Amino acid sequence: MARTDLPDRRANPVRPARLAHEDARAIAAQPSPATGNARSAGSTAVGGRSAGSRRSEAARLAVLNAADDLLVEYGFEGLTIEGIAAAAGVAKQTIYRWWKSKVDILFDNLVLDAGSALGWPEHPSSPADVRAYVHRFATFLGEEPAGRVLQALLGHAQLDPRTAELLHSGFLDELRARDVAHVRSCLGLADDDRAAAVLDAVLAPLYHRALVLRRPLDAAFVDALLDQQLDQQPAR
Amino acid sequence: MARTDLPDRRANPVRPARLAHEDARAIAAQPSPATGNARSAGSTAVGGRSAGSRRSEAARLAVLNAADDLLVEYGFEGLTIEGIAAAAGVAKQTIYRWWKSKVDILFDNLVLDAGSALGWPEHPSSPADVRAYVHRFATFLGEEPAGRVLQALLGHAQLDPRTAELLHSGFLDELRARDVAHVRSCLGLADDDRAAAVLDAVLAPLYHRALVLRRPLDAAFVDALLDQQLDQQPAR
Repeated sequence: MARTDLPDRRANPVRPARLAHEDARAIAAQPSPATGNARSAGSTAVGGRSAGSRRSEAARLAVLNAADDLLVEYGFEGLTIEGIAAAAGVAKQTIYRWWKSKVDILFDNLVLDAGSALGWPEHPSSPADVRAYVHRFATFLGEEPAGRVLQALLGHAQLDPRTAELLHSGFLDELRARDVAHVRSCLGLADDDRAAAVLDAVLAPLYHRALVLRRPLDAAFVDALLDQQLDQQPAR
Repeated sequence: MARTDLPDRRANPVRPARLAHEDARAIAAQPSPATGNARSAGSTAVGGRSAGSRRSEAARLAVLNAADDLLVEYGFEGLTIEGIAAAAGVAKQTIYRWWKSKVDILFDNLVLDAGSALGWPEHPSSPADVRAYVHRFATFLGEEPAGRVLQALLGHAQLDPRTAELLHSGFLDELRARDVAHVRSCLGLADDDRAAAVLDAVLAPLYHRALVLRRPLDAAFVDALLDQQLDQQPAR
């Protein structure tokens, strides 16, 4: 199934188990909000480049992969640039060439992983597409390493305005605008405000469970939530 | 109106404007989960004590008051023990005698302020009591310095397991148990699970707005949320 709209992590020899689907698109070679650097990854994206460029791409991906593995294992406080460098097999200076801090590394990681984890079908058109997306979001937030990254960045955003700005301007605002548009068309709603209200009604309990209650986002909970919230929608 | 169930900040000469009501009860002289120390505060609580003890109480309150003022002004990252000591007019060593870190200071602050800010009537008995409580909670979380403290501690809890344990075992679990019991009796619900579901349905959107969307928790939003969620309740 083709997914759309967010940059996607390409087929990645460093971490094959993390691949979400076969037809991953090229990561947009656009400036990263965290670093201001253009970014690309994977063998196809760098097919025409030099061996040095390929090594550089591989090192960058190794750093990103190491960062969220270590986050899951040691938590945010236990995550250090030294530890990431050791696990990725690169020098600390290499990391500091690309990123200012561990927050910036985690942010780039989130943007990459969310591309595959939080996709929609190419032409979402039905309430079933909304249901499937919300289930994917719950799995992402509650179970996946990149969801743990999002939780950590949301936590850090409560403590540090720069992180809040990066996370919102660089990721959450765009994600929300895309999701509102899809919810609106899938449910045949009259305007974006109504679609945003539906989206918030299903996402708020998921964030609440993950960030405040620390309870699992199990499929039965998500289904009950969707039944309740989507059934409340007025007819088209 | 008498409020019940959580320890309450007593009449406090250091910060009279923060008092929520006249009949504040004595803060329970119970061990603080953050520090393991017994805690008391205010003139009545120390009425029978020595002048040295009163000075000690005043210093402790001055530290707590300084911490959340500085949190609002400079944010968590800008909050330092040095800054708190200077603002409170006490020595750094005095602070370290009572608290291990700024997280512990903020935690004690939260417990004290939540006592007055998040009270219920002594005998809550109607849906109107639930509505009033949820409005108080929204004001607390969205506008008050102690609500900012709760946001910061929830943020830090995403990054640090010890903070998560302290916040949940020392505050959130008890708050939730109390609120579930009151919601159950006020709405005449059959069991705690149903009451917890109602409570979550109204609190989740408030936490989501504060922590994720960064939007105001205005009274109109809270009223619409209550209309929607409380009207869905089955008859008693």
